[in-house]
Formats: sequence, structure tokens, C-alpha cells
Amino acid sequence: MTPHVSWPESGEALRGQLEARIRGKAKPIGALGRLEKLAVQIGMATGTLAPDLGLAKVVVFAGDHGLTAEGVTAYPSVVTGEIAKLILAGGAGINMCARAAGVDVMLVDAGLLQPLVAHVNLLERRMGPGTKNSRREPAMTFDQCRLAFTAGREIAGDLENAGVGIAAFGEVGIGNSSAAALLAHVATDIDLDRLVGPGAGVPALGLDHKRHVLKETLAREPLIERQNTARMFEALGQFGGFEMVMMAGAMTAFAAKDRIIIVDGFIATAVAAVAAKISADALNHCVFAHCSAEPGHRALLTYLNAEPLLDLGLRLGEGTGAALAVPLVRAAEFMLRDMAELPGGHPA
Amino acid sequence: MTPHVSWPESGEALRGQLEARIRGKAKPIGALGRLEKLAVQIGMATGTLAPDLGLAKVVVFAGDHGLTAEGVTAYPSVVTGEIAKLILAGGAGINMCARAAGVDVMLVDAGLLQPLVAHVNLLERRMGPGTKNSRREPAMTFDQCRLAFTAGREIAGDLENAGVGIAAFGEVGIGNSSAAALLAHVATDIDLDRLVGPGAGVPALGLDHKRHVLKETLAREPLIERQNTARMFEALGQFGGFEMVMMAGAMTAFAAKDRIIIVDGFIATAVAAVAAKISADALNHCVFAHCSAEPGHRALLTYLNAEPLLDLGLRLGEGTGAALAVPLVRAAEFMLRDMAELPGGHPA
Repeated sequence: MTPHVSWPESGEALRGQLEARIRGKAKPIGALGRLEKLAVQIGMATGTLAPDLGLAKVVVFAGDHGLTAEGVTAYPSVVTGEIAKLILAGGAGINMCARAAGVDVMLVDAGLLQPLVAHVNLLERRMGPGTKNSRREPAMTFDQCRLAFTAGREIAGDLENAGVGIAAFGEVGIGNSSAAALLAHVATDIDLDRLVGPGAGVPALGLDHKRHVLKETLAREPLIERQNTARMFEALGQFGGFEMVMMAGAMTAFAAKDRIIIVDGFIATAVAAVAAKISADALNHCVFAHCSAEPGHRALLTYLNAEPLLDLGLRLGEGTGAALAVPLVRAAEFMLRDMAELPGGHPA
Repeated sequence: MTPHVSWPESGEALRGQLEARIRGKAKPIGALGRLEKLAVQIGMATGTLAPDLGLAKVVVFAGDHGLTAEGVTAYPSVVTGEIAKLILAGGAGINMCARAAGVDVMLVDAGLLQPLVAHVNLLERRMGPGTKNSRREPAMTFDQCRLAFTAGREIAGDLENAGVGIAAFGEVGIGNSSAAALLAHVATDIDLDRLVGPGAGVPALGLDHKRHVLKETLAREPLIERQNTARMFEALGQFGGFEMVMMAGAMTAFAAKDRIIIVDGFIATAVAAVAAKISADALNHCVFAHCSAEPGHRALLTYLNAEPLLDLGLRLGEGTGAALAVPLVRAAEFMLRDMAELPGGHPA
């Protein structure tokens, strides 16, 4: 089932106005290509012909995964915390990309194995010392899931209050390509095997082992067959990382505030697929930054009718692709709002 | 004949060091995809493991084309000056993209029909009030061509002295997709028909008319069959726009200074193809920003073994694609220079 992405009927008049406004800009019609479609999306998502998105910010949600005990990763869980520390120290990949794009980075500890030392760029929203091993038991309790989702919603509110109109969401969490495959499968019915890839690296026991573990995890306890939202919350609690549940909450709330979300790679896209089942409007506010090298990402993007902006073979996560897409979103915003009209108009 | 892009033999040791340095960074091996190849290019081009490129700047070369008298364009020549004025006023497409990328824009009047009013962002290097109609006579004299090329070299020197290490070269010039097709054909032997496209817009008389005019222009006077450099200069003088000759001079000189050039779209890529015949090392310093919607661009990029960073269907020129690629170049630079090593190293 392909999600039907649409705006309220009243918005279609706005779409026509946006397209007319862009046609009148000082350039050949259509000459800014993909940026013009992006500008229409931004106008529709913000409900205006002249959006002022304010600040952009990278938010990296971090959490550890009990499922790593099953040998589904190349790196041990401790690497999540090491990368989180590097992000705070300014030396990780996301810091390079964010600096290049001129945006700040905030790290959210949604549930690392070990707490981090306080830092000006750290938001502490720990739901526990990593999740449980979801092959054996639910990754988190219902209460943890609810609290993580609510914390994400609150983060979106705080971003709005700080003047952020473009939130680039990324993550760090050894094991979360497994959780993402499971969540994406539940949200989209795409075959699980197609969604399983190396993530940060092929585990020592191989990809077939990872597939086997994920199938067993999925089969451990049948999900409810009720309506989408409850099923999505159940899946988040059964398989999710804290960082993913929190990102899902942040996405739905930031979308509801008519702001723009830049979705990073495979894991963030899986979260967006879940968020879209919880709040149908969320996808209208999601800009998909790039198509990563993780094999399941393209299938997921196709399912979501998403046209990613970049295709650079990235597969690092941390929000790196999302950060690099910020200037593209800004260019579309500026074009729509500030670019002059063509003197004399277009030739007939 | 495909140009043979290579670094001096002594550079191959550096390449190995660069690749080792990138492998040790705090990320899975290869996880930054295309940015890692870009970082190797930057390291090779600058001759260091830790490049500090300093400032980035967009330079837009502007000039008018006498060939527009032959009905090869959708817009009249006067539009070149109008767009140039808009660029100085901050309202053109390039201003939106440059602001989004956090870089300044400089406009070079290489030979517009009418002079512009002085402006802090304007560099006046007028070689004449537009070129002659190259279907009927050479676009410029040998002296004009030499002076334009030299002016470009001087601009590269001024950029270097101002601390610019990344120059994003774009252009504005109604008619210059015709000049670019002719120059690209001479430089690469790609069939002229494949290099002729709508440019800023299909002319009222159609694309076949444009092709016919360009074939007649090419046939007017056979080019010398001597060695490449002289032939390239002859072609620049016969067909070039002042803005293109000047950009070619700037490219060769900026490359010789071990700096990085970001090449915008079809026209700038045609200039790069010519510059590569004049100075074999130039391409090593060229980063190709994007693949434009102009049909000949992909053929030209393929000929040059160039892997463009973006594919957004842009066809505006003005350096818009080059500006949007600046953050990607910066991210690669920062990664190579500043990104931390992985604590504990990679798993075996």
C-alpha cells in the first residue's frame, strides 16, 4: 500500500499560486529543476508564498540497542557512545558536514549505554541504558515508548521556540539498521530481506545471520492487526531504538508546526515511514536528503514517493546527508521568497 | 581522444597516504562515498594531507554574443545585462544559491553590450561591447582573445591573494550555449549535434535552425590543425565569448596555483574542456558541480571522465550549481583535514 500524500483541498489553490510565482522568477521557466519542486513543497508545507524558515539545525538522536548481543553488527555497542562523544567534541563526520553547511549540531542522548558528561550541545533525554534485546523480549516498555515519543514532541517544540524552521534529523546507534529494517517492514510491508543490509558494516557472522535474527525477532510475538497508529506504536516499542522513537515524535510534532524536516538516511527514512502512519501529514513536511548506499534505502524511498536531493553513496548516518542538504533547502526557500522577477517577462 | 588526467608520478605516494588517512577516520571505511573521492582529489590538487582552502567565492563572468543576431536564442542579448544587474542587486538565482551556501558573489563584466554602473561586487574587465557575429566573422580579434585570457589569469591571481582557495566559476551570456557547443566540439570532437541544446530556451526558429547556424559558423573558416594550444586559442577567438575566454584563463591560472575550481554547468564545462587542452593539469583541479538539464552536458562530462556532485536538473547557469556544490567541497576538505580517527580502530 503506497501512502497517499496530499494536502488539504484548500491547499491546491496555494499550489497554483506557488507555481505561478516561481514561473515569474528571473530565470527560464523550470531552469532551477528540482529546486523548484522543493520550493513548491516548502510553500505548501508552510502555507505561504514567501516562507521564512529561520534557523536550520542538525539534531542527532543517539541510543544503544540490546539486539547487538545477537551478532548483527560489525561494531560493538560501545562505539555508539564513542561517536556521540566525538560529535560533542566536534570531530565526527556530522561536524564536518554541518560546518560545511553552516549549521549547528545538537546531540540528544535518548538512551546510550552510559551517560555522557554534560555539554552545551547535549540534550539528555535518557530512556534507559540502551534497549533490551528485541530478539528475546520487547526492546522497551510501553511507558518508555510513550515517554520517548513525547520527549521527541517536546524537542520539536523547543526547536520551534528557538526559531528553527529546518530540522535535519540524524541518528547514531550501533544496531539500528536492524531496528530500522524491522520498523520499515512493518510500516511498508516491503519484504524484510530487501531492507536488510550491512548498515555500518557486515557483521562477522554475515548478512544471512542478520536476516535470520531479524526474522526471528519479527516472529517472536505477532503484532496487533488493529489500526495503523496503535500498530506503529507497538512496533516502535517491540523493535525500536529509543533514538528512533524520539525522532518519530519529533517528526510528527515538527510537521504539525508547519516546519521542514530534512530526513537523513536509511534509519531516519524508516522512522519517517513510521511517522507517516502515525500522522498522515508528516511526509508533506519531509525533505529526503539523499539516497544512501544501504541497499534498502532506495526501496523505502520509492515506496514513499520520495525524490532524494543527493546521491553521493553516503552510508554514515549521524545526519551527514541531511546536513549537506540544508543549503539546497535554503536555496529553494530563498528563491521562492527573495528572487526577483524577470525584467520584461519571458518570451512568448 | 580522451584527455589523460594524471598527477606527476611523485604524487602517487601522496595518493596512498591520503587514502590511508581517510580509511582511518571515525567512520566505516568508505562510508562518506563520493566525498572521500573528492577529498583525495583535493589532497592531490593541493599537494597536502591537510588542505586549508581558505575562502570560497563565486565568480560570474558576463559577456554578450554577436551570434544572437542569427536567431539562435530565445531571449534577446539585452537580457544578459539585465541579469548582470540583478546579480549585483542580489536578486538573481545565483544570489539565492550563494547565500544558501554561505559564499559571496563577484561579477566580472568581460564584455557586455552596455557597461554597468560601478558596484562593490563588480569587476570591470570589458574587452568590447559584446563579441562580433561569429557566423560572419571571428567573434574577437587575436589581441582581444589574448587580453581576455590574460585578464582571467590576473583574476585568478587576485583571488589567490584574497585568500580564496575554492573558486566557483559561472557565467551569464545570452547566446553562449552556442559558443559553448562550438568550443566543446573543437576541444573534444564530440559530434556538434549532440552538443546543441535549448540553452536558456529553444529559439523561436527551433533547434534545427540553431544547429544549422552553428554548422555554418564552424565551416566559415577551417581551424588550424596544429598543436592543441594554438588551436584552442584560435577556437576561443573565432567562437568564444569574452566571458568564456576569461574563464579559461582564470581556470588555467587557478589550477596552476594548486587551488580548487568548481565548474558550473554546460558552458563552464565546455570552457574546462578547452582549458584542459591548454593546460593538461587544469582538470586535476576541477570539481564538476552538477549535471545540468542541457543535453550536451552529460556527453561532455562523460568525455572528461567527470563525476558531477549534484544532479538536480538545473539549467540556469550563473554559477548556481557551482555555488550549491561549495558545501560538498568544504565537507570533503574538513573531513580530510579535521575529522577524528576512529577510537579503537575498525573491526578486522
